[in-house]
Formats: sequence, structure tokens, C-alpha cells
Amino acid sequence: MKFSTLIETLGSTVVSHSLATDSRSDLEITGVSAVEDAAPGTISYVEGDKYSRCIATTAASALILPANQKLQTQASDRGIAWIACPNPRLAFAQTIALFYQPVQPVPGIHPTAVIDPTAKIGQAVSIGAHAVIQSGVKIGDRVAVHPNVVVYPDVQIGDRTILYANCVIQERTQIGADCVIHSGAVIGSEGFGFVPTDDGWFKIQQSGYVVLEDGVEVGCNSTIDRATVGETRIGRNTKIDNLVQIGHGTKVGKNCALASQVGVSGSVQVGDRVILGGQVGVANQANIGDGVQAGAKAGIHSNVEPGEIVMGSPFLPYRQFLKASAAYSRLPEIYQLFKRLQRKFGEELKDG
Amino acid sequence: MKFSTLIETLGSTVVSHSLATDSRSDLEITGVSAVEDAAPGTISYVEGDKYSRCIATTAASALILPANQKLQTQASDRGIAWIACPNPRLAFAQTIALFYQPVQPVPGIHPTAVIDPTAKIGQAVSIGAHAVIQSGVKIGDRVAVHPNVVVYPDVQIGDRTILYANCVIQERTQIGADCVIHSGAVIGSEGFGFVPTDDGWFKIQQSGYVVLEDGVEVGCNSTIDRATVGETRIGRNTKIDNLVQIGHGTKVGKNCALASQVGVSGSVQVGDRVILGGQVGVANQANIGDGVQAGAKAGIHSNVEPGEIVMGSPFLPYRQFLKASAAYSRLPEIYQLFKRLQRKFGEELKDG
Amino acid sequence: MKFSTLIETLGSTVVSHSLATDSRSDLEITGVSAVEDAAPGTISYVEGDKYSRCIATTAASALILPANQKLQTQASDRGIAWIACPNPRLAFAQTIALFYQPVQPVPGIHPTAVIDPTAKIGQAVSIGAHAVIQSGVKIGDRVAVHPNVVVYPDVQIGDRTILYANCVIQERTQIGADCVIHSGAVIGSEGFGFVPTDDGWFKIQQSGYVVLEDGVEVGCNSTIDRATVGETRIGRNTKIDNLVQIGHGTKVGKNCALASQVGVSGSVQVGDRVILGGQVGVANQANIGDGVQAGAKAGIHSNVEPGEIVMGSPFLPYRQFLKASAAYSRLPEIYQLFKRLQRKFGEELKDG
Repeated sequence: MKFSTLIETLGSTVVSHSLATDSRSDLEITGVSAVEDAAPGTISYVEGDKYSRCIATTAASALILPANQKLQTQASDRGIAWIACPNPRLAFAQTIALFYQPVQPVPGIHPTAVIDPTAKIGQAVSIGAHAVIQSGVKIGDRVAVHPNVVVYPDVQIGDRTILYANCVIQERTQIGADCVIHSGAVIGSEGFGFVPTDDGWFKIQQSGYVVLEDGVEVGCNSTIDRATVGETRIGRNTKIDNLVQIGHGTKVGKNCALASQVGVSGSVQVGDRVILGGQVGVANQANIGDGVQAGAKAGIHSNVEPGEIVMGSPFLPYRQFLKASAAYSRLPEIYQLFKRLQRKFGEELKDG
Repeated sequence: MKFSTLIETLGSTVVSHSLATDSRSDLEITGVSAVEDAAPGTISYVEGDKYSRCIATTAASALILPANQKLQTQASDRGIAWIACPNPRLAFAQTIALFYQPVQPVPGIHPTAVIDPTAKIGQAVSIGAHAVIQSGVKIGDRVAVHPNVVVYPDVQIGDRTILYANCVIQERTQIGADCVIHSGAVIGSEGFGFVPTDDGWFKIQQSGYVVLEDGVEVGCNSTIDRATVGETRIGRNTKIDNLVQIGHGTKVGKNCALASQVGVSGSVQVGDRVILGGQVGVANQANIGDGVQAGAKAGIHSNVEPGEIVMGSPFLPYRQFLKASAAYSRLPEIYQLFKRLQRKFGEELKDG
Repeated sequence: MKFSTLIETLGSTVVSHSLATDSRSDLEITGVSAVEDAAPGTISYVEGDKYSRCIATTAASALILPANQKLQTQASDRGIAWIACPNPRLAFAQTIALFYQPVQPVPGIHPTAVIDPTAKIGQAVSIGAHAVIQSGVKIGDRVAVHPNVVVYPDVQIGDRTILYANCVIQERTQIGADCVIHSGAVIGSEGFGFVPTDDGWFKIQQSGYVVLEDGVEVGCNSTIDRATVGETRIGRNTKIDNLVQIGHGTKVGKNCALASQVGVSGSVQVGDRVILGGQVGVANQANIGDGVQAGAKAGIHSNVEPGEIVMGSPFLPYRQFLKASAAYSRLPEIYQLFKRLQRKFGEELKDG
């Protein structure tokens, strides 16, 4: 693709570009690349000032830059064509989509797939080798069920949803349109419910189900348990990374992002636009308000007010956490000094 | 089911009920529900005083309550039928089982299953589509092997055990009766054993196996490695949640509960009735006594005495942890005072 | 195997042995065992002085010991045959390999496997039941693809590599020779890439791929995402345990070991010979130098210099961490003292 064609395709997001002053920069762009590992001919991007060093060394022939005169001059000086945009990462994402052809599933139903006669399959669906679709399942149009997927009875799957290889969708799960379930994920499994009795654990039947609203993604090997009664629900356009656990009866709002290895217990309420960093844990019945952000490894054992940014375990507001963890590294000295003061003033400090 | 029939079925666990004073409350119960999301006609439950607000707002027509006069009056005043029990959660679990019909696996052996001729299969076994049963496997009566399960050579599986879709049971694993292995779990895989040498890692063959005693449950995508030599063992009726790791050679006792994302290293000894919260980690060769409880995210790097309740990482007895973590949030102030005291007294306290 | 034959087979690694002084100790060794659970006739090992108590109680008939006169005498006094080596664990690993016959996959291509006609399959390959090999895949010689494995288009797999049951290798992944991918692992899945916009998350196509160099092992249910552009790379002979997450665009060096439940975010650089303990988390774009060791549960949010040993979250050098966490357990006292000091000196210290 010609550089000038790319500029035209990106449209109004482009604020300025090197072609305006240097028509020689209208080269053939052969692909997209990471700025440190770029091959000549490719286009990459940098997000801000601190990546100036990447411009100095990259082998990319073109770059998407922020609206930053200094970086643009630096690129021009090295003979690198550039496009300036307010959100370089978004423009780069749009550029990747122009160059990248995702693997398309083989259309049609593979002869080795085992499909119950009561299942209803939509138009233009792909069902891969050895997939298993059980009784009462309803699958929308243009859905892709990859090889070795198992769909239990009475599951509903909306249009254009993709189920990658070896994921499992258990009974009564309702998946919306435009969802992506990655390989090995398990949706709708029995929640972990046992009542302690004198005779050991009494198992609570998990009679509920899971609802994924439209546009939800669930990462590889993540697990979402069905509710004991009623539903476990993941809101519209919420994105869940790999190896995440969502407990039974939990409700997650819309447009959230849950990073890898997050664990959310049962009966938790998570608001909209919540971002949980990697390995965050959330305790039973906690209530997390809209727009909360939790840093990696945070332990959320109780409610978090809307809009708060929290870190640590047990969590603290992030400013307090940063100060406390800085002080933590000085604890040995603090403790030494306190002991000496206690020796010196111990008597008069007694009982305050 | 009539409310009066439910009372009769629950039997001696029922201490009192609204029918005693209000015969109009003998309604038709149509199902079970979560108290906040209940539909009219359904029965739900509340566990204690703090759920009084749920009684005030629920749409449920009937409730299982604790033996608490105030809550009972509150329910009656709203025209809600009620049953009072010493353990409302257990009575609710028993009630769910009356209303819920779990999905039953299709009986018989699916023609696409691949079963080695040397495998021995019990009576009334269900083997799902595309399951693979390898040589020397012994499967008890009424076992359910769901689709796409792979059972490696010389595995033994006891009566009535359920293997959900896409789980993998590797060589020589011994699974007892009445066990449940959830989707994607891997039991009996090679332990992580490598000796560092000048030429890199030398792999230690993992010649042992895994034993799951009767009544063990293993959650979705959990992994239990086989021992280097001898056995990894999970005791009778121990329940393991999703995404849990159990390392090679570890022994877990009876009636334990391990919450999601717990990681237990190799050669660990865990006693009976131990409860580990979500994301707890246990280091190599630690010894955890009977009845220990560890709060979510605890890091157990050394032995824990029987009956202790521990939290934090490195773990502390929970009372000490609660005090220490409360003080932790004051560390910024403590640090400020420390710096001022050091300026004032630093010289005269030197060498203490 | 005769004890004398074992000594001969282990060769120059044997420094001394009980046969030199006691020819009666040339017994028939029937197998390998764990020292605490040993059966008579078997050989086990102990690693150092602190296992003296194991020698006192083991039922093993032979032991591999360190070069420690006291332990050797102790073994001889109990009539236990022994071999002394500088690295008993390595010698025991070599001994296990003499006794243990790993399960061999059935040779040939199972008739239920679905293999695209454009795939190129090497010599002496085993492809198990219901495996799926898609278009453009190249598989080397003596590779074992176990049942229910799915290999997406254009994957390359080197000689002698083993793919255990139910793992998934997604498009364009390059796996070297002598690698082991354990059950349920997912390699080459889409990275977690979304740009926040006013309309919600904009998905970034993940156009890159994953490279596993020769000798890499990936544990059960671990996930390695492909890069947005370019590659995610795991260096030669690096060993990855179960339930580990590696984010998109991350580069891990050679001869590393990543314990179970480690989470490495995207665009991280990990050097050679790095050891990460269980449940360690590494934040986006961190740079971890060669030879770094991180204790279990460490949180690595920024760069770590080569050779450092770190612990805690946020991480500290391990000596400082040990002091700080010891002081942490005294925080309740420190806080009491702090309050008294503040009462006494608060006024005069004001504004420093």
C-alpha cells in the first residue's frame, strides 16, 4: 500500500504528515512492525516523548507519531515518513487491520462434528472437526465453532460469535452476538458451592446459568462459573484476559477489562468501565463501583467506591499505597530507631 | 411443589414456619432464586441479621430464614411465607436439589469414542463423543466420561465418577468413586522437575502417579502433577476449585477446600479440613497442620501449626495480620515522624 | 538391576560407595522411591545434612547421598547401601531414567485424526485420535501429537517435539525441536490488545506470532499469546510450569525457569537464566536482567538489574525484604510506640 493511500484511508484522524513537506516520502508500505524489531519498508508507531530513542534507532520506513513537533522533526531528519495523530495507538490498530488477514475458519460443518438433531444452526456457520453440539442448542448466523469445542445442552450463541478450539460451553449458557471465547475457556461450569456439615461438605447443586452480553471476550483457559440460582453475568463489551476466574453469581458491568489471572469470587458486583490489573483478587460479595481501577495484585476484600484507584493487599487508595510501600522499604531503620527511642524514653512513654 | 410439601420434605431441620400461624401461606413454589433477583412464586433464603434489607425488598414469595424472630416477623409482615432452620444455607441447598434436574449424560458409548480393546469398562457407563480411552484403563460402574476427554494408559476410575468435557487424565492416575473432574482439568501430568547443571536443565523423569480418593472434586482447568517417585495424593472429599495448581509429590488431606487459583508447590503436606482462600501460595515442602485456614492471597513459605488461621505474605496469625495491615496504612505518617525524630535524636542515639 | 551395575552405569559422578567396604550391599535394586515412602528393595536419595532424620527412618534399601561422611556412616549403620555423589539430585534423576519407561505414543496416524492435505508431516510421527492439523502446517520427524490436539494453519513444529492431549497451537506459531507442550496449554492465541475509545474498546488485531526455541517446555493449561506485530519469543531450554501466562510481544531468554501461576505481561524483556517463583507477576514493559531470581509472589513493576534476587510486591532486594517483612510483623508495636512518640514529641517536631 502506498503511504499516500494509507493517509487517505486513515482519514480525519491524521493531523499532519511528512508528505506535506517531502513528496519523496510516498513509499510502498509492505507491512506493520514493532518499532524495535522493524524491517525496512514497514510502518510502526511510538506513543510519546519517551520513545524518542526508538525513532533514533528503528529500521521502520514509516512511523505513526503523536502530535509532537520534535518527534516529527527527528523522524524527518532520519528520512522516516510519518503520520501524526492524537491517538497513535488507535491509528496503528487501524493500520494493522488494513494489512492483516486473520485466519478464516473453514466454512460449513465438518463431517466429524457431532451435532444433536434438536440443535438449531444459523446461516453461514462454520463448525470445525470433532466439535460437539448437544441437544437444544441455538447457534446464530455466521458463528464460528472451531475444532474440538463442546457445547452442552440448551446453550444459546449469538450472531458472529467465535468459539476457539477446545473451549467448553456448559448447559444453559447464553452468549450474545460478536463475542469471542478463546481456546480452553470454560463457561457455565458448576460454581464452587459446598456447605460444611458434620459429615463433610454438602454439595449445592448449581441450578443457574451464565450470560455473556454482546461483544464480550473471554481469554484462553479462563473459567466463568454458573450461578447457584439465577445468573452470573458479564456486561456488554467487557474484555477478559487469559486464566481469569469469575465465581458463581457474580455480575460484571459493561466495558470492563480484567487482566490475566484475575480472580473474582462469587456474588461480587463489579460496575461499568472497571479495570482490574493482573492477578487482582476480589473477595466474596464485594461491591466494586463504576470506573474503579485496581493495580496488579491488589486484594479487594470489601467495597470500593466508584472512580477509586486502588493498589495493594489489603487495598489502599493508590497515593496512600505508594507512600506506604515506599515507607515499607525503610521499616528496618524505622524499627531500629523506635527501639532506641523506647530504650531512652521508655519509662516516660509508658501508658502514654 | 406446595409450600407445605416442602416443609414436610425438609423434615426435622425445620424449626418453625409461617403456616403455623397463617394457613394462607401454603402457596405453590415454582422454583428457587437469589434473594435480590427473585421472581414471584420462588423461594430464596437469607443467612442472618444483616440480610434484613433483603427481606424488605425481595420479590420472592417464600424464604428460608435463620431461627430469628425479628426476621420472621418482618417476612410475615410482607406476606412472605417462611421456614426457619438452624442452617438456612444447608436447607436452601436441599431445596435446590428438589427443584433442579441436572443435565444427564447420554447413556452408552458414543460411536466416535476411541476405546482401546484392553480397557475395562463397567456397567451403565456413558462415554461421550470423541472421548479417547487408552490401553489398560479400568472404568467403574455408572461413570460418565463427557465428550473430548482423554484418558491415558493404566488409569483407574471409580464408580459414579464424572469427567467433564475436555479434561485429561494422564498415565497411572487412580481416581476414586464419586469424584468430579471438571472441564479442562489435567490430572497426572509430569511434575516440574529439572536439575540445574552446567549444560542447562536436566529433566527428571516423573515416574510417579496421582491418587484422588473418593469424593474429590477438581475444578475447571486445574492441574495436579504426578510425583517424581511415589504419589501425589488428594484425600477423601477434598474439594478443589478452578485454576488450582497442585505440585508433584504433594499430599492433601481429607475434607479440605482449596479456592480458585491456589498454588501448592511440590512435596507439600496439607492436613485434614484445611481451607485455603483464593490465590494462596504454598512453598515447597511446607507442612500445613489439620484445620488450618489461610486467607486469600496468603503466602505460606513454612510450616503452619494445626488450627491456626493465617493471612498475608509472608503469613502471620490473623489477629497480628489485621493489626499489622491496619498500621501499614499509617506507614506514611509513621515515616514522617521517623524522619523528624531521626533529625532530632539521630546523633545522640548512635550506637544505641 | 544390581547395585554394582547401577554404580557402574552412573560412572564418574560416583565419588564413593558402600560396596567398597561392604560387599554384602550388592543387592538387587527393584525401583526408585521417595525417601519417606520407600519400599524395601528400592533406592532413594537425600540432598544434605538436614535429611539425616530421613536416613534414620527410611525403608529404602539404598540411598544416593552427598559427599558427607556422617550421613554415609549413618546409612551403613542401618545396613543401607549408599552411593555418594557431589549432586545427589542429579544422580537420582539419572537413576530414575534407568528404571522408568515413559508411556510411548502409539506410532502412526490415527484414522480419526483430521489432517489438511497441505500439511507436511515428517518421518515416524505419531498423531493421536481426533487430532486436527490444519493447512500449511509443517511437522518434523518423530514428533508426537497426542489425542485431541488442534494445530492451526501455518504452524511449524521441530523434530521430536511432544504435544500432549488437548493442547492448542494457534496460527503461525514456530515450535523448535525437542520441545514439550503439556496438556491444555494454548500457544499463539490472540494477545489482549484493546485501545480505549469513546465508543468502548477498539480491538487491535494480533498479527504476530510465537516462537519457542529448541528445548522449551510449556506446562499444562499455560497460555502464551502471539505478538500484536512481530514475535513473542521463549528462548532455548527455558522451562515453564503449569498455569503460566506470557503476554504478547514478551521475550524470555534461554535456560529460564518460570514456576506455576507466574504472570508475565506484554512487551516484557526477560534475560537468560532467570528464575521466577510461583505466582510472580511482571508488569508491562519491565526489563529483567540475566540471572535474576524472584521469590514466590514477587510483584515486578519495573526493571531489575542482572543477578539481583528480589522478593515482595513491590519487589525489594531480598535482604531488605527479609528485614522489612520481619519488621512488618512488629508493626502493631511500632504503631503503638509511634502514637506515644507523637504525643510526646509531636508539638516540638512540627514543621521539622
